[in-house]
Amino acid sequence: MEFSDYFPIWDTMEPRQQEAVSAGLISRTVKKGTMLHGGGADCTGLLLVKSGQLRAFILSREGREVTIYRLFDRDICLFSASCIMRSLQFDVAITAEKDTQLWIIPADVYRRVMEQSASVANYTNEIMASRFSEVMWLMEQVMWQSMDKRVAAFLLEETSIEGTDCLRITHESIANHLGTHREVITRMLRYFQSEGMVKLARSAVEITDRTKLEALGGE
Amino acid sequence: MEFSDYFPIWDTMEPRQQEAVSAGLISRTVKKGTMLHGGGADCTGLLLVKSGQLRAFILSREGREVTIYRLFDRDICLFSASCIMRSLQFDVAITAEKDTQLWIIPADVYRRVMEQSASVANYTNEIMASRFSEVMWLMEQVMWQSMDKRVAAFLLEETSIEGTDCLRITHESIANHLGTHREVITRMLRYFQSEGMVKLARSAVEITDRTKLEALGGE
Repeated sequence: MEFSDYFPIWDTMEPRQQEAVSAGLISRTVKKGTMLHGGGADCTGLLLVKSGQLRAFILSREGREVTIYRLFDRDICLFSASCIMRSLQFDVAITAEKDTQLWIIPADVYRRVMEQSASVANYTNEIMASRFSEVMWLMEQVMWQSMDKRVAAFLLEETSIEGTDCLRITHESIANHLGTHREVITRMLRYFQSEGMVKLARSAVEITDRTKLEALGGE
Repeated sequence: MEFSDYFPIWDTMEPRQQEAVSAGLISRTVKKGTMLHGGGADCTGLLLVKSGQLRAFILSREGREVTIYRLFDRDICLFSASCIMRSLQFDVAITAEKDTQLWIIPADVYRRVMEQSASVANYTNEIMASRFSEVMWLMEQVMWQSMDKRVAAFLLEETSIEGTDCLRITHESIANHLGTHREVITRMLRYFQSEGMVKLARSAVEITDRTKLEALGGE
Protein backbone atom coordinates (compact mmCIF):
# COMPACT_ATOMS: atom_id res chain seq x y z
CA MET A 1 0.00 0.00 0.00
CA GLU A 2 1.32 3.36 -1.09
CA PHE A 3 0.89 6.84 0.37
CA SER A 4 -1.57 7.60 -2.41
CA ASP A 5 -3.84 4.81 -1.10
CA TYR A 6 -3.83 6.35 2.35
CA PHE A 7 -4.29 10.00 1.43
CA PRO A 8 -8.01 10.25 0.67
CA ILE A 9 -7.91 13.26 -1.65
CA TRP A 10 -4.88 12.14 -3.69
CA ASP A 11 -6.94 11.84 -6.88
CA THR A 12 -8.27 15.39 -6.59
CA MET A 13 -4.75 16.85 -6.66
CA GLU A 14 -3.08 18.05 -9.84
CA PRO A 15 -0.11 15.98 -11.10
CA ARG A 16 2.41 18.67 -10.13
CA GLN A 17 0.92 18.82 -6.62
CA GLN A 18 1.14 15.03 -6.34
CA GLU A 19 4.76 15.22 -7.47
CA ALA A 20 5.60 17.92 -4.92
CA VAL A 21 4.12 15.83 -2.08
CA SER A 22 5.78 12.59 -3.28
CA ALA A 23 9.16 14.29 -3.58
CA GLY A 24 8.97 15.72 -0.06
CA LEU A 25 7.49 12.67 1.67
CA ILE A 26 9.41 11.03 4.53
CA SER A 27 8.62 7.48 5.61
CA ARG A 28 9.39 6.52 9.22
CA THR A 29 9.03 3.60 11.57
CA VAL A 30 9.16 4.48 15.25
CA LYS A 31 9.19 2.40 18.41
CA LYS A 32 6.52 2.66 21.09
CA GLY A 33 7.40 5.56 23.36
CA THR A 34 9.09 7.70 20.72
CA MET A 35 8.43 11.43 21.06
CA LEU A 36 7.46 12.52 17.55
CA HIS A 37 6.71 16.15 18.21
CA GLY A 38 7.75 18.04 21.28
CA GLY A 39 5.45 21.02 21.17
CA GLY A 40 7.19 24.37 21.26
CA ALA A 41 8.18 26.12 18.08
CA ASP A 42 9.19 23.12 15.99
CA CYS A 43 7.16 22.40 12.90
CA THR A 44 7.70 18.73 12.19
CA GLY A 45 5.17 18.40 9.37
CA LEU A 46 1.89 16.58 8.93
CA LEU A 47 1.87 13.00 10.14
CA LEU A 48 -0.15 10.31 8.38
CA VAL A 49 -0.36 7.05 10.33
CA LYS A 50 0.08 3.92 8.22
CA SER A 51 -0.22 1.57 11.18
CA GLY A 52 0.17 1.95 14.92
CA GLN A 53 -1.09 4.47 17.44
CA LEU A 54 -0.14 8.02 18.37
CA ARG A 55 -1.18 10.14 21.30
CA ALA A 56 -1.55 13.93 21.23
CA PHE A 57 -1.47 15.69 24.58
CA ILE A 58 -0.90 19.04 26.23
CA LEU A 59 1.50 19.70 29.08
CA SER A 60 1.22 22.09 31.99
CA ARG A 61 4.21 24.07 33.19
CA GLU A 62 4.39 21.71 36.18
CA GLY A 63 4.60 18.68 33.89
CA ARG A 64 1.00 17.49 34.17
CA GLU A 65 -0.42 16.00 30.98
CA VAL A 66 -3.83 15.50 29.44
CA THR A 67 -4.54 13.47 26.32
CA ILE A 68 -6.50 15.45 23.76
CA TYR A 69 -6.86 12.76 21.11
CA ARG A 70 -5.42 9.56 19.71
CA LEU A 71 -4.51 8.79 16.11
CA PHE A 72 -4.96 5.38 14.53
CA ASP A 73 -4.43 3.89 11.07
CA ARG A 74 -5.09 6.42 8.30
CA ASP A 75 -5.45 9.34 10.71
CA ILE A 76 -3.67 12.60 10.00
CA CYS A 77 -2.12 14.92 12.55
CA LEU A 78 -2.14 18.61 11.68
CA PHE A 79 -0.85 20.09 14.90
CA SER A 80 2.64 18.76 14.42
CA ALA A 81 2.70 21.29 11.55
CA SER A 82 1.16 24.29 13.27
CA CYS A 83 3.32 26.62 11.16
CA ILE A 84 1.08 25.87 8.16
CA MET A 85 -1.46 28.25 9.71
CA ARG A 86 -0.73 31.60 11.27
CA SER A 87 -3.65 31.32 13.68
CA LEU A 88 -2.70 28.00 15.26
CA GLN A 89 -1.37 29.30 18.55
CA PHE A 90 -1.07 26.26 20.76
CA ASP A 91 1.35 23.45 21.38
CA VAL A 92 0.58 19.80 21.30
CA ALA A 93 3.07 17.02 22.02
CA ILE A 94 2.86 13.73 20.15
CA THR A 95 4.25 10.33 21.14
CA ALA A 96 3.90 6.83 19.74
CA GLU A 97 1.78 4.62 22.01
CA LYS A 98 2.60 1.60 19.89
CA ASP A 99 5.25 0.79 17.29
CA THR A 100 4.10 2.98 14.43
CA GLN A 101 4.71 3.33 10.71
CA LEU A 102 3.98 6.76 9.37
CA TRP A 103 4.63 9.30 6.67
CA ILE A 104 5.68 12.88 7.32
CA ILE A 105 4.64 15.56 4.84
CA PRO A 106 6.97 18.50 5.43
CA ALA A 107 5.04 21.60 6.49
CA ASP A 108 6.26 23.88 3.70
CA VAL A 109 5.37 21.31 1.02
CA TYR A 110 1.88 20.89 2.43
CA ARG A 111 1.30 24.60 2.85
CA ARG A 112 2.23 25.32 -0.75
CA VAL A 113 -0.19 22.67 -2.06
CA MET A 114 -2.94 23.78 0.31
CA GLU A 115 -2.65 27.39 -0.85
CA GLN A 116 -3.25 26.34 -4.45
CA SER A 117 -5.81 23.59 -4.05
CA ALA A 118 -9.36 24.21 -2.78
CA SER A 119 -9.71 20.45 -2.38
CA VAL A 120 -6.65 20.14 -0.10
CA ALA A 121 -7.66 23.24 1.85
CA ASN A 122 -11.18 21.89 2.39
CA TYR A 123 -9.81 18.51 3.40
CA THR A 124 -7.55 20.25 5.92
CA ASN A 125 -10.64 22.03 7.22
CA GLU A 126 -12.37 18.70 7.76
CA ILE A 127 -9.40 17.28 9.67
CA MET A 128 -9.25 20.33 11.89
CA ALA A 129 -13.02 20.30 12.44
CA SER A 130 -12.80 16.68 13.46
CA ARG A 131 -10.03 17.32 16.02
CA PHE A 132 -11.87 20.41 17.21
CA SER A 133 -14.94 18.26 17.84
CA GLU A 134 -12.85 15.83 19.89
CA VAL A 135 -11.43 18.66 21.96
CA MET A 136 -14.91 20.11 22.55
CA TRP A 137 -16.09 16.69 23.69
CA LEU A 138 -13.14 16.57 26.09
CA MET A 139 -13.92 20.10 27.28
CA GLU A 140 -17.47 19.03 28.10
CA GLN A 141 -16.13 16.00 29.99
CA VAL A 142 -13.72 18.13 31.98
CA MET A 143 -16.34 20.80 32.70
CA TRP A 144 -19.36 18.73 33.57
CA GLN A 145 -18.31 15.14 34.32
CA SER A 146 -17.02 13.88 37.63
CA MET A 147 -13.68 12.03 37.70
CA ASP A 148 -15.23 8.60 38.50
CA LYS A 149 -17.22 8.73 35.25
CA ARG A 150 -14.15 9.88 33.30
CA VAL A 151 -11.98 7.05 34.68
CA ALA A 152 -14.71 4.49 33.91
CA ALA A 153 -15.13 5.82 30.36
CA PHE A 154 -11.35 5.83 29.85
CA LEU A 155 -10.99 2.19 30.98
CA LEU A 156 -13.80 1.12 28.65
CA GLU A 157 -12.23 3.01 25.73
CA GLU A 158 -8.90 1.31 26.44
CA THR A 159 -10.43 -2.18 26.43
CA SER A 160 -11.97 -1.37 23.08
CA ILE A 161 -8.65 -0.08 21.63
CA GLU A 162 -6.64 -2.98 23.06
CA GLY A 163 -9.22 -5.70 22.45
CA THR A 164 -8.81 -7.12 25.95
CA ASP A 165 -10.32 -6.62 29.41
CA CYS A 166 -6.90 -6.97 31.01
CA LEU A 167 -5.11 -3.65 30.54
CA ARG A 168 -1.35 -3.23 31.00
CA ILE A 169 -1.39 0.34 32.27
CA THR A 170 -0.06 2.24 35.27
CA HIS A 171 -2.02 4.61 37.48
CA GLU A 172 0.46 7.31 36.46
CA SER A 173 -0.37 6.78 32.82
CA ILE A 174 -4.13 6.97 33.42
CA ALA A 175 -3.56 10.20 35.37
CA ASN A 176 -1.59 11.63 32.41
CA HIS A 177 -4.39 10.79 30.02
CA LEU A 178 -7.02 12.46 32.17
CA GLY A 179 -5.02 15.43 33.42
CA THR A 180 -5.06 14.57 37.10
CA HIS A 181 -2.71 13.27 39.81
CA ARG A 182 -1.69 9.64 40.25
CA GLU A 183 -3.07 9.61 43.80
CA VAL A 184 -6.53 10.54 42.52
CA ILE A 185 -6.48 7.59 40.11
CA THR A 186 -5.18 5.15 42.71
CA ARG A 187 -7.96 6.13 45.11
CA MET A 188 -10.57 5.82 42.35
CA LEU A 189 -9.34 2.42 41.17
CA ARG A 190 -9.35 1.10 44.74
CA TYR A 191 -12.94 2.25 45.06
CA PHE A 192 -13.77 0.53 41.72
CA GLN A 193 -12.09 -2.63 43.07
CA SER A 194 -14.08 -2.50 46.30
CA GLU A 195 -17.23 -2.29 44.14
CA GLY A 196 -16.11 -5.36 42.16
CA MET A 197 -15.74 -3.49 38.86
CA VAL A 198 -11.98 -4.03 38.45
CA LYS A 199 -9.17 -6.14 39.83
CA LEU A 200 -5.83 -4.40 40.37
CA ALA A 201 -2.37 -5.89 39.93
CA ARG A 202 1.09 -4.43 39.38
CA SER A 203 0.86 -2.17 36.29
CA ALA A 204 -2.40 -3.81 35.29
CA VAL A 205 -6.12 -3.22 35.61
CA GLU A 206 -8.53 -6.03 34.82
CA ILE A 207 -12.18 -5.21 34.12
CA THR A 208 -14.26 -7.70 36.13
CA ASP A 209 -17.74 -6.17 35.89
CA ARG A 210 -18.14 -4.45 32.56
CA THR A 211 -21.88 -3.82 32.98
CA LYS A 212 -21.39 -1.95 36.23
CA LEU A 213 -18.51 0.05 34.77
CA GLU A 214 -20.60 0.93 31.72
CA ALA A 215 -23.46 2.08 33.92
CA LEU A 216 -21.02 4.45 35.62
CA GLY A 217 -19.07 5.59 32.56
CA GLY A 218 -22.01 5.88 30.16
CA GLU A 219 -24.39 8.78 30.01
CA MET B 1 -18.87 50.72 5.07
CA GLU B 2 -19.96 47.75 3.00
CA PHE B 3 -19.69 44.01 3.59
CA SER B 4 -16.80 43.92 1.11
CA ASP B 5 -14.82 46.24 3.42
CA TYR B 6 -15.34 43.86 6.32
CA PHE B 7 -14.68 40.56 4.59
CA PRO B 8 -10.88 40.45 4.35
CA ILE B 9 -10.57 38.14 1.34
CA TRP B 10 -13.26 39.78 -0.77
CA ASP B 11 -10.75 40.85 -3.42
CA THR B 12 -9.40 37.32 -3.83
CA MET B 13 -12.83 36.00 -4.81
CA GLU B 14 -13.99 35.69 -8.40
CA PRO B 15 -16.77 38.07 -9.54
CA ARG B 16 -19.37 35.29 -9.69
CA GLN B 17 -18.41 34.19 -6.14
CA GLN B 18 -18.75 37.80 -4.96
CA GLU B 19 -22.16 37.97 -6.62
CA ALA B 20 -23.31 34.73 -4.99
CA VAL B 21 -22.34 35.99 -1.55
CA SER B 22 -23.85 39.45 -2.11
CA ALA B 23 -27.10 37.96 -3.34
CA GLY B 24 -27.45 35.69 -0.30
CA LEU B 25 -26.31 38.17 2.34
CA ILE B 26 -28.67 39.04 5.20
CA SER B 27 -28.12 42.19 7.24
CA ARG B 28 -29.45 42.22 10.81
CA THR B 29 -29.49 44.45 13.86
CA VAL B 30 -30.16 42.66 17.14
CA LYS B 31 -30.71 43.87 20.69
CA LYS B 32 -28.48 42.88 23.59
CA GLY B 33 -29.63 39.51 24.89
CA THR B 34 -30.87 38.15 21.55
CA MET B 35 -30.18 34.44 21.04
CA LEU B 36 -28.67 34.28 17.55
CA HIS B 37 -27.97 30.59 17.39
CA GLY B 38 -29.40 28.01 19.71
CA GLY B 39 -27.06 25.11 19.18
CA GLY B 40 -28.73 21.91 18.13
CA ALA B 41 -29.22 21.04 14.51
CA ASP B 42 -29.93 24.48 13.09
CA CYS B 43 -27.47 25.92 10.64
CA THR B 44 -27.98 29.65 10.82
CA GLY B 45 -25.06 30.61 8.60
CA LEU B 46 -21.78 32.43 9.12
CA LEU B 47 -22.03 35.59 11.20
CA LEU B 48 -19.83 38.59 10.51
CA VAL B 49 -19.96 41.24 13.22
CA LYS B 50 -20.14 44.82 11.93
CA SER B 51 -20.33 46.32 15.41
CA GLY B 52 -21.27 45.02 18.82
CA GLN B 53 -20.36 41.91 20.79
CA LEU B 54 -21.37 38.26 20.63
CA ARG B 55 -20.75 35.44 23.06
CA ALA B 56 -20.29 31.80 22.08
CA PHE B 57 -20.85 29.24 24.83
CA ILE B 58 -21.60 25.61 25.47
CA LEU B 59 -24.40 24.30 27.66
CA SER B 60 -24.51 21.22 29.87
CA ARG B 61 -27.62 19.08 30.07
CA GLU B 62 -28.27 20.61 33.50
CA GLY B 63 -28.20 24.12 32.05
CA ARG B 64 -24.70 25.13 33.16
CA GLU B 65 -22.83 27.34 30.71
CA VAL B 66 -19.25 28.16 29.87
CA THR B 67 -18.11 30.91 27.50
CA ILE B 68 -15.75 29.58 24.85
CA TYR B 69 -15.03 32.85 23.07
CA ARG B 70 -16.32 36.33 22.31
CA LEU B 71 -16.70 38.00 18.94
CA PHE B 72 -16.08 41.68 18.36
CA ASP B 73 -16.13 44.03 15.35
CA ARG B 74 -15.00 42.28 12.15
CA ASP B 75 -14.96 38.83 13.78
CA ILE B 76 -16.53 35.89 11.99
CA CYS B 77 -18.41 33.04 13.62
CA LEU B 78 -18.19 29.68 11.85
CA PHE B 79 -19.91 27.48 14.37
CA SER B 80 -23.32 28.94 13.72
CA ALA B 81 -22.89 27.23 10.34
CA SER B 82 -21.58 23.87 11.45
CA CYS B 83 -23.34 22.18 8.51
CA ILE B 84 -20.68 23.64 6.18
CA MET B 85 -18.35 20.89 7.44
CA ARG B 86 -19.26 17.27 7.97
CA SER B 87 -16.75 16.85 10.78
CA LEU B 88 -17.99 19.69 12.99
CA GLN B 89 -19.76 17.63 15.61
CA PHE B 90 -20.45 20.00 18.43
CA ASP B 91 -22.99 22.61 19.37
CA VAL B 92 -22.28 26.16 20.33
CA ALA B 93 -24.91 28.69 21.36
CA ILE B 94 -24.49 32.36 20.43
CA THR B 95 -26.07 35.41 22.03
CA ALA B 96 -25.60 39.15 21.64
CA GLU B 97 -23.88 40.66 24.67
CA LYS B 98 -24.43 44.16 23.30
CA ASP B 99 -26.67 45.65 20.62
CA THR B 100 -25.06 44.22 17.50
CA GLN B 101 -25.11 44.86 13.77
CA LEU B 102 -24.11 41.84 11.73
CA TRP B 103 -24.29 40.08 8.40
CA ILE B 104 -25.38 36.49 7.97
CA ILE B 105 -23.92 34.51 5.07
CA PRO B 106 -26.25 31.55 4.54
CA ALA B 107 -24.43 28.25 5.06
CA ASP B 108 -25.18 26.77 1.63
CA VAL B 109 -23.95 29.93 -0.14
CA TYR B 110 -20.71 29.92 1.84
CA ARG B 111 -20.12 26.20 1.39
CA ARG B 112 -20.49 26.44 -2.37
CA VAL B 113 -17.95 29.29 -2.58
CA MET B 114 -15.57 27.55 -0.18
CA GLU B 115 -15.62 24.37 -2.25
CA GLN B 116 -14.48 26.28 -5.33
CA SER B 117 -12.06 28.79 -3.85
CA ALA B 118 -8.74 27.80 -2.25
CA SER B 119 -8.53 31.32 -0.88
CA VAL B 120 -11.91 31.11 0.91
CA ALA B 121 -11.14 27.59 2.15
CA ASN B 122 -7.78 28.68 3.55
CA TYR B 123 -9.34 31.73 5.16
CA THR B 124 -11.93 29.45 6.78
CA ASN B 125 -9.05 27.33 8.04
CA GLU B 126 -7.48 30.37 9.64
CA ILE B 127 -10.73 31.34 11.38
CA MET B 128 -11.16 27.81 12.72
CA ALA B 129 -7.51 27.63 13.81
CA SER B 130 -7.95 30.88 15.67
CA ARG B 131 -11.07 29.67 17.54
CA PHE B 132 -9.37 26.34 18.18
CA SER B 133 -6.46 28.20 19.78
CA GLU B 134 -8.89 30.07 22.04
CA VAL B 135 -10.55 26.83 23.09
CA MET B 136 -7.17 25.20 23.80
CA TRP B 137 -6.25 28.20 25.94
CA LEU B 138 -9.53 27.77 27.81
CA MET B 139 -8.86 24.04 28.18
CA GLU B 140 -5.51 24.79 29.77
CA GLN B 141 -7.16 27.26 32.12
CA VAL B 142 -9.81 24.74 33.13
CA MET B 143 -7.28 21.94 33.53
CA TRP B 144 -4.47 23.66 35.34
CA GLN B 145 -5.69 26.96 36.79
CA SER B 146 -7.48 27.37 40.08
CA MET B 147 -10.83 29.21 40.12
CA ASP B 148 -9.47 32.28 41.97
CA LYS B 149 -7.00 32.94 39.11
CA ARG B 150 -9.72 32.39 36.52
CA VAL B 151 -12.11 34.84 38.23
CA ALA B 152 -9.34 37.44 38.55
CA ALA B 153 -8.37 37.05 34.87
CA PHE B 154 -12.03 37.24 33.83
CA LEU B 155 -12.63 40.49 35.77
CA LEU B 156 -9.52 42.04 34.23
CA GLU B 157 -10.60 40.98 30.73
CA GLU B 158 -14.03 42.52 31.33
CA THR B 159 -12.57 45.86 32.44
CA SER B 160 -10.54 45.90 29.26
CA ILE B 161 -13.57 45.09 27.05
CA GLU B 162 -15.84 47.58 28.85
CA GLY B 163 -13.24 50.30 29.33
CA THR B 164 -14.18 50.81 32.98
CA ASP B 165 -13.20 49.42 36.38
CA CYS B 166 -16.81 49.43 37.51
CA LEU B 167 -18.46 46.38 35.95
CA ARG B 168 -22.24 45.95 35.72
CA ILE B 169 -22.34 42.17 36.04
CA THR B 170 -24.09 39.61 38.22
CA HIS B 171 -22.44 36.69 40.03
CA GLU B 172 -24.70 34.39 38.00
CA SER B 173 -23.33 35.81 34.78
CA ILE B 174 -19.70 35.40 35.87
CA ALA B 175 -20.51 31.79 36.82
CA ASN B 176 -21.97 31.19 33.35
CA HIS B 177 -18.86 32.55 31.69
CA LEU B 178 -16.57 30.34 33.73
CA GLY B 179 -18.69 27.19 33.86
CA THR B 180 -19.20 27.09 37.60
CA HIS B 181 -21.96 27.72 40.17
CA ARG B 182 -23.09 31.14 41.36
CA GLU B 183 -22.25 30.23 44.96
CA VAL B 184 -18.61 29.59 44.02
CA ILE B 185 -18.35 33.05 42.45
CA THR B 186 -20.07 34.78 45.35
CA ARG B 187 -17.67 33.15 47.81
CA MET B 188 -14.67 34.09 45.67
CA LEU B 189 -15.77 37.71 45.21
CA ARG B 190 -16.31 38.07 48.95
CA TYR B 191 -12.80 36.82 49.50
CA PHE B 192 -11.52 39.31 46.87
CA GLN B 193 -13.43 42.06 48.70
CA SER B 194 -11.95 41.10 52.06
CA GLU B 195 -8.51 41.36 50.42
CA GLY B 196 -9.35 44.86 49.14
CA MET B 197 -9.22 43.88 45.46
CA VAL B 198 -12.86 44.59 44.62
CA LYS B 199 -15.89 46.34 46.07
CA LEU B 200 -19.24 44.60 45.63
CA ALA B 201 -22.62 46.23 45.10
CA ARG B 202 -25.93 45.04 43.68
CA SER B 203 -25.19 43.61 40.17
CA ALA B 204 -21.86 45.39 40.12
CA VAL B 205 -18.21 44.65 40.83
CA GLU B 206 -15.75 47.51 41.15
CA ILE B 207 -12.03 46.83 40.82
CA THR B 208 -10.33 48.67 43.67
CA ASP B 209 -6.82 47.18 43.58
CA ARG B 210 -5.90 46.33 40.02
CA THR B 211 -2.24 45.56 40.83
CA LYS B 212 -3.20 42.94 43.39
CA LEU B 213 -5.79 41.42 41.05
CA GLU B 214 -3.26 41.30 38.23
CA ALA B 215 -0.74 39.56 40.47
CA LEU B 216 -3.37 36.90 41.13
CA GLY B 217 -4.81 36.62 37.62
CA GLY B 218 -1.52 36.87 35.70
CA GLU B 219 0.94 34.05 35.22
